Amino acid sequence: MSEIRILNPDTLGKPLGQYSQITRVKASEFLFIAGQVATDKTGNPVGLDDFSRQCEQVFANIEAALASQAATFANVVEFTTYLVHSQDIPQFMQFRRREFPRFFPSGKYPPNTLLIVDRLVQEPFLIEVQTVAAL
Amino acid sequence: MSEIRILNPDTLGKPLGQYSQITRVKASEFLFIAGQVATDKTGNPVGLDDFSRQCEQVFANIEAALASQAATFANVVEFTTYLVHSQDIPQFMQFRRREFPRFFPSGKYPPNTLLIVDRLVQEPFLIEVQTVAAL
Amino acid sequence: MSEIRILNPDTLGKPLGQYSQITRVKASEFLFIAGQVATDKTGNPVGLDDFSRQCEQVFANIEAALASQAATFANVVEFTTYLVHSQDIPQFMQFRRREFPRFFPSGKYPPNTLLIVDRLVQEPFLIEVQTVAAL
Repeated sequence: MSEIRILNPDTLGKPLGQYSQITRVKASEFLFIAGQVATDKTGNPVGLDDFSRQCEQVFANIEAALASQAATFANVVEFTTYLVHSQDIPQFMQFRRREFPRFFPSGKYPPNTLLIVDRLVQEPFLIEVQTVAAL
Repeated sequence: MSEIRILNPDTLGKPLGQYSQITRVKASEFLFIAGQVATDKTGNPVGLDDFSRQCEQVFANIEAALASQAATFANVVEFTTYLVHSQDIPQFMQFRRREFPRFFPSGKYPPNTLLIVDRLVQEPFLIEVQTVAAL
Repeated sequence: MSEIRILNPDTLGKPLGQYSQITRVKASEFLFIAGQVATDKTGNPVGLDDFSRQCEQVFANIEAALASQAATFANVVEFTTYLVHSQDIPQFMQFRRREFPRFFPSGKYPPNTLLIVDRLVQEPFLIEVQTVAAL
């Protein structure tokens, strides 16, 4: 059983969104989840041109990946988020403000690194999130 | 000795290539390998303008890094792959279809996150792969 | 207490900068530090249009994050560095040549993966560094 502490030391700046600066984790078992994009169970893209819908699907996929190993968002130690359009950053912030309190009822949001890249594996995908979790 | 399980839960979409959705790993010793590009032993670029040759060199370098610690591709728990040109995605898919069955005779391909970025450390490099492994 | 070995096996090319090819780490406790950008303690950007100043602030933030958990740069097992402009690569190399001997008095520089991406979370940020450490 892991011991996960999500921390915002006051020697560091206030996080610029719904994330924390540090996870300190004592664990002997980890999950590495491939970057999730907005695909349904058949592997087809969903939410074409709909960034908010893609966010929902991506986090639903991460939740399913965690659940398959009897884990929840509380097990997440790190996210890395890749967006294709910097114009979507405000919507991503909004999505987290709206949904993260439900995903993370403790109010402890894991560290996230947000990057704007050229493209993801297929043209329609607007967001991809890579996850590390501890069991 | 680590216990590595590579998993594709059926609650998640079929992977979009030669990778799996999740690694579940119980381990107390890990390798973090710097992103590998197509350099030879003297640090010089190889495979100029030859994406397929660069793929070979990158995975040869990863294999050498693993071998230096008495590990093999079976120890890999996560790849992150960065390409410079989205036009190379089909060739990357092809490379994996061709070579991964040899690298991973178990047929268990580790999670991978594929990203298209602007550039790598030097102009000629077309692909870089970052690796985490468990011993 | 972790056991961290930073390695450059001679079967791999010479690193292309102030980093090493492999970390081998035996540990049961890890830190995942969110990508650090050049913010001060109030979360405001510092070093506008000044890449070198931003580098200093980013590594000061990482040092503060480590220090908050009684760790130092000697605990780092992996960096991933994102720059917005490839033109800044020479300055980044120069910054590391100048500062890393002080940050890493052992001369053992952790693996780094250097990527050029489109943009970071806010327009003024020119560099972001993600860190994993072992306690």
